[in-house]
Amino acid sequence: MAKQATRYFSIHPWAIVEDSYDPQRNRVAESVFSLANEFMGVRGYFEEGTSAPSLRGNYFNGIYEYSPEQSGGYLGVVRRTHYMVNSVDFFATELKVDGVNFDQATAKVSDYSRVLDMKTGVLRRTLVWHLADKRVRLSFERFLDMEYPNRAYQRVDICSDKAADVELIFKTDFNVRHWGQPTSWQQVATDRKNAGIVCKTKTTSQPVAGVSHVSANSKGRWYLSFGDKVACNTLRVRLEENFDFVAERLVVNTADKTAGDPNRVLNFACEELKRQIAEGYEDARKRNAEYWKQFWQNSDIQIDGDEANQQGIRFCIFQLQQTYHGAFPTDNIGAKGLTGEAYSGHAFWDTETYCLPYYLFNNPAAAKSLLSFRYNTLEQAKQRARELDCVGACYPIATLNGQEACTLWQHASLQIQPTTGVAYGIAHYVNVCRDRQFLVDCGAEMLVEICRFLVSRGQWDSTGKYFGYYAVMGPDEFQMMVNHNTYTNYMAKQTFCYTLNVIRSLSSAELDSLTAKTGLTRAELNEFERCARSMLILYDDKTKLFEQHRGYFELPHIDVDSIPVEQFPLYSHWSYDRIYRNDMIKQPDVLMFMFLYSSEFTVEQKRANYEFYEPRCIHESSLSPSVHSVLASELGLDDQALKFFDFATRLDLDDYNCNTDEGLHLTSIAAAWMNIVYGFGGLRSDGELLSLSPALPSCWKRLCFKLNYCGSRLEVELTRHRLKIYSTGKVKLVVYGKEVEVCNEFTTER
Amino acid sequence: MAKQATRYFSIHPWAIVEDSYDPQRNRVAESVFSLANEFMGVRGYFEEGTSAPSLRGNYFNGIYEYSPEQSGGYLGVVRRTHYMVNSVDFFATELKVDGVNFDQATAKVSDYSRVLDMKTGVLRRTLVWHLADKRVRLSFERFLDMEYPNRAYQRVDICSDKAADVELIFKTDFNVRHWGQPTSWQQVATDRKNAGIVCKTKTTSQPVAGVSHVSANSKGRWYLSFGDKVACNTLRVRLEENFDFVAERLVVNTADKTAGDPNRVLNFACEELKRQIAEGYEDARKRNAEYWKQFWQNSDIQIDGDEANQQGIRFCIFQLQQTYHGAFPTDNIGAKGLTGEAYSGHAFWDTETYCLPYYLFNNPAAAKSLLSFRYNTLEQAKQRARELDCVGACYPIATLNGQEACTLWQHASLQIQPTTGVAYGIAHYVNVCRDRQFLVDCGAEMLVEICRFLVSRGQWDSTGKYFGYYAVMGPDEFQMMVNHNTYTNYMAKQTFCYTLNVIRSLSSAELDSLTAKTGLTRAELNEFERCARSMLILYDDKTKLFEQHRGYFELPHIDVDSIPVEQFPLYSHWSYDRIYRNDMIKQPDVLMFMFLYSSEFTVEQKRANYEFYEPRCIHESSLSPSVHSVLASELGLDDQALKFFDFATRLDLDDYNCNTDEGLHLTSIAAAWMNIVYGFGGLRSDGELLSLSPALPSCWKRLCFKLNYCGSRLEVELTRHRLKIYSTGKVKLVVYGKEVEVCNEFTTER
Repeated sequence: MAKQATRYFSIHPWAIVEDSYDPQRNRVAESVFSLANEFMGVRGYFEEGTSAPSLRGNYFNGIYEYSPEQSGGYLGVVRRTHYMVNSVDFFATELKVDGVNFDQATAKVSDYSRVLDMKTGVLRRTLVWHLADKRVRLSFERFLDMEYPNRAYQRVDICSDKAADVELIFKTDFNVRHWGQPTSWQQVATDRKNAGIVCKTKTTSQPVAGVSHVSANSKGRWYLSFGDKVACNTLRVRLEENFDFVAERLVVNTADKTAGDPNRVLNFACEELKRQIAEGYEDARKRNAEYWKQFWQNSDIQIDGDEANQQGIRFCIFQLQQTYHGAFPTDNIGAKGLTGEAYSGHAFWDTETYCLPYYLFNNPAAAKSLLSFRYNTLEQAKQRARELDCVGACYPIATLNGQEACTLWQHASLQIQPTTGVAYGIAHYVNVCRDRQFLVDCGAEMLVEICRFLVSRGQWDSTGKYFGYYAVMGPDEFQMMVNHNTYTNYMAKQTFCYTLNVIRSLSSAELDSLTAKTGLTRAELNEFERCARSMLILYDDKTKLFEQHRGYFELPHIDVDSIPVEQFPLYSHWSYDRIYRNDMIKQPDVLMFMFLYSSEFTVEQKRANYEFYEPRCIHESSLSPSVHSVLASELGLDDQALKFFDFATRLDLDDYNCNTDEGLHLTSIAAAWMNIVYGFGGLRSDGELLSLSPALPSCWKRLCFKLNYCGSRLEVELTRHRLKIYSTGKVKLVVYGKEVEVCNEFTTER
Repeated sequence: MAKQATRYFSIHPWAIVEDSYDPQRNRVAESVFSLANEFMGVRGYFEEGTSAPSLRGNYFNGIYEYSPEQSGGYLGVVRRTHYMVNSVDFFATELKVDGVNFDQATAKVSDYSRVLDMKTGVLRRTLVWHLADKRVRLSFERFLDMEYPNRAYQRVDICSDKAADVELIFKTDFNVRHWGQPTSWQQVATDRKNAGIVCKTKTTSQPVAGVSHVSANSKGRWYLSFGDKVACNTLRVRLEENFDFVAERLVVNTADKTAGDPNRVLNFACEELKRQIAEGYEDARKRNAEYWKQFWQNSDIQIDGDEANQQGIRFCIFQLQQTYHGAFPTDNIGAKGLTGEAYSGHAFWDTETYCLPYYLFNNPAAAKSLLSFRYNTLEQAKQRARELDCVGACYPIATLNGQEACTLWQHASLQIQPTTGVAYGIAHYVNVCRDRQFLVDCGAEMLVEICRFLVSRGQWDSTGKYFGYYAVMGPDEFQMMVNHNTYTNYMAKQTFCYTLNVIRSLSSAELDSLTAKTGLTRAELNEFERCARSMLILYDDKTKLFEQHRGYFELPHIDVDSIPVEQFPLYSHWSYDRIYRNDMIKQPDVLMFMFLYSSEFTVEQKRANYEFYEPRCIHESSLSPSVHSVLASELGLDDQALKFFDFATRLDLDDYNCNTDEGLHLTSIAAAWMNIVYGFGGLRSDGELLSLSPALPSCWKRLCFKLNYCGSRLEVELTRHRLKIYSTGKVKLVVYGKEVEVCNEFTTER
């Protein structure tokens, strides 16, 4: 795996620490120090701006613009994409001392430290600024409210060793850029009392309001002014020497995704600001620290004996919780979360295949909410199927609002895994969370529409004997347009089978209701059954190998280790078509369905396919290593498992892919959780019972993780020779292949 | 074949006649009445403009603009295309009688006729315009000079049955539109004496000058005026009743493709205009009529017993000669010639595979010139190979200037047939025209670079045993990204073999020179040989079938006759990916190489493959029917051969593809010549000797065509029971499979 770590942040079990500052790493640090609370996200940019390379980003989940519609083009090809747009800059602050602007990239600075405290969710930067005649101690602190998602908090501390003139301007500024281009926010209202600005997006007319309240512990000249799409709260103060000056800004941002009344949005912001002021900065910070404390009690993973991975996995869990915890049914998990503009804020099939497990076992309501997002966008998926000359529901490869946002036809028209991924997600959720009612209310309807799509997109081979998918791109995006991709065929077959099982399990009243909703006929069910039965699965029982697609085994072989590391990522160094002409794979494809349906395959099958496909994989997708790590772990390949895991947990902290500057790889971060719990924890959740076969890597002393399961909280603690499972309730599990009932504590020596 | 003829023009052996006018067919008629002389082309628009749908186009071969460069995108994908740009409108004329503008689409008109006389190259429109109080006879005539390509001629005749005030404004106007958008011509000079305007293109700085001289047989008020990029020669005259008023405009247009000095271009135009004036309109018309007479003596094809096809084939030959006859080595043959903006004036691989035969047997110098175009753009082809991470020379799928102009990677990166097509063209030219010197001077060098590309783009299969091409699109563009397309593999193999033969045939001095030019090594030759020997050709000796590509036979079958005719063209009615997921083919692929290398295959092989592939072909490419017709003819399938031929000759006259409004299908027009001569004429030119096996369709009485071959002129005359061949020199031929020597006349009864 041609990936190299760039260690920049210090190792700490509960914090991300930058103790010396490199302007060239500024954008990477901005990504890593991102804060979010699902509703909004803010990159870790310096409040006061910088002359260093910077991506100053503030994003709201589901606030987006449409790109201009392209004319012409082929049918079924998306002509108009949409993207999460950079929004109000609510931490913008100008800082002058004695008339000099502070710019950390060029100023003389000592005693520098920036710390993201994952125990409290607070980001704090402290430093001493050396001016010609004085030293000024500065501290910048910020956090977002995890319970009242509209609220944000900022504090600036200033202390000078000599009297000094300080000017602070707290701005609420919609004059932001997106991918380096000016945004098209249109101002629609202001509020003089609360330094409020309301702007709306151009193409979607979504209003966003920003209001704020500034207070300080020193009197000075205060005034409020408004410019074009900006409100400025200016404070000029003469500081006495060694006086600990403190200014706090309480911020409320509100938004309406449905293009509603801007004044309503503003009014709500003003009301919320009143409540925020009433609580005050300190109490809010304490309350949020308590929130995080509770959170970690439920969701922490402890690794003894590996500080780097301990920090890494906590960072993953922290960022995952920040990005999404099921607060709003219209939210999903963008590939970069709320930490950057790359991938346009889009959610991919990663949601159901890589992110869902974390929520299944930490926050089942959030897991349900993710699936509800798909239910709520069923109409868009049906529309998409029609655009592709199909019927039923085709889920988008990339979306914010349910519409397909990917303008590359080779992905949007050829990748069926988002659709089978939704079906898998439903099955996985229902299996783990035992939420039959979701099936009855939403799931069965989605499954029927998905199967309809799968029938209409699939085709019978020339003999009429085998069914399968032609001109598809499986998860391995290095094989662009192939026939009978086994992942696609296998997932479709499982989808048909599961759907038929679900329908069989419905009561007649439930079936009547489903029929009324979908117009489902007996003939269709027969067709689902026939397609499932005739699905071509390319498998050789002698070698135990699945062929990735028809003809894959004949492809020219390439020794991936012979590719010079400078040639990665290949998209930036190889001619486009060259990538697709050999047996190199980008990410797991056969191994992916063997992971998803783990219980369907023997260890021998997994070993044969792992040994064949792993050496051909270059892991150009950041999602790839985690699945390999899980399988390596199951196959007892500890070194490989750990190597892949290092990458998964520390992908962004160590900038393995050299693109963390664009934002965090949020769905890879989710995969890191899956990696440790399914890998070293040996969890399997696709069978009837939960199964655990933990195996501690040789260099670790202890691994402890928690699972919310069937109303109980399980705590799994693994040491060198002992596995302990604590449970708050009575739970049936399969542990190391044996069915056990855990109540309170279960211990087994190894 | 789901194609329907729309008969609009009257049948006439030597003319295209429109004897009643339908404004809805205006754009189609503009295309059909296009004039060109290789240097420039002008659509058959009404001089005076019209309120009917119109594409007013004037084009110069090789005068083009670049589109803006797209940012980002994948490597090897063309970011900037270029296109032949709509240029000076040199026939623009305003006509008013008694202050009323003439608009044929709305005016009351009788005695209408528009005739393109293919014997003389003159286009004439005559009509009577009914005004409230008078009738005005109008005649508009135009032609382009075939010998002095800068010269164009226009004449307007007016005769009123009552006295009338006439205003005529002859314009030279660069304010033209391209695809409905304003062009960006920049005015750089004017010439008051000759109503001259010089403008240059924006991105390529190519100057184009238009000058003109107007004369009339009646005194009146004359004045010259200039506007922005337009010169106006206004003539106001009071006509007496029944006076035959005549105004003539002599036009000279000059251009410099190399972005040279605009004043030089203008000066040359003014000098040429002097010479044109000295000759005068009438003499020029006579001289051009003589040119066409000579031309037809050499190149006419006569069909007795089928007036529609007689007209059709003459129209094809006429348009082909107009578009290209080898006047300039920088010219090539655009898919739409000089008759429209569609396909951007680009030349495709059609040049070598569909157009070249016409020139080989009618104008060998022009054939050589087409190949010289490729030699002169060898550097661009090498550059393109490098962009694709390959070496050697990769010829563009679409180009005006040698650079790849196709921005669709799926065509530009996956289609190798332009490159093998050039090699085929060289071999074909050298074989027919016996021009060994071309091989020595240019051909061998091109072949070496082509082979280098073919080695670097090809790959060895997983066993290391077979060589071939992965991720390619063959001629059949309905199979997008396949492996071991047999056309591609077969053509590459032939290219290697031919190149090796050529190199073996070189003298040691010639080989030294080639080595000096190319750095060719023995190891490379071995590699060419190894690749050729190991080339995978998917052939089943039992069925005699070539498989179009690996896996083609397994593809879902579609009964192409079951596709409703309204769904054509499929690109406009089917989701893009849906087109690529079955065994339907767009145009000949296996049949194409069997046609190109006809002598390599037995009739049984041809029959088996024709019977298999023809029913799967929907002929969505206008090039498709002619190749099928040739093969059908060889296989004795007369009805099919004639059905396809009808389409080929009358594609544009009868607007079979419903898109003649965009321009003529020039390369299909070339294919029509090939169709009749290789089809019913049974010509084969890929063997050592020319071979002829003519077969008259049952409904024809007589077919006569001419061939320029080895310095002799052959005239082949076929009647029901007799074949006569006249030759001006002694020529060895294979006739009906028997070698004969023809001198003067050869006759065989059938």
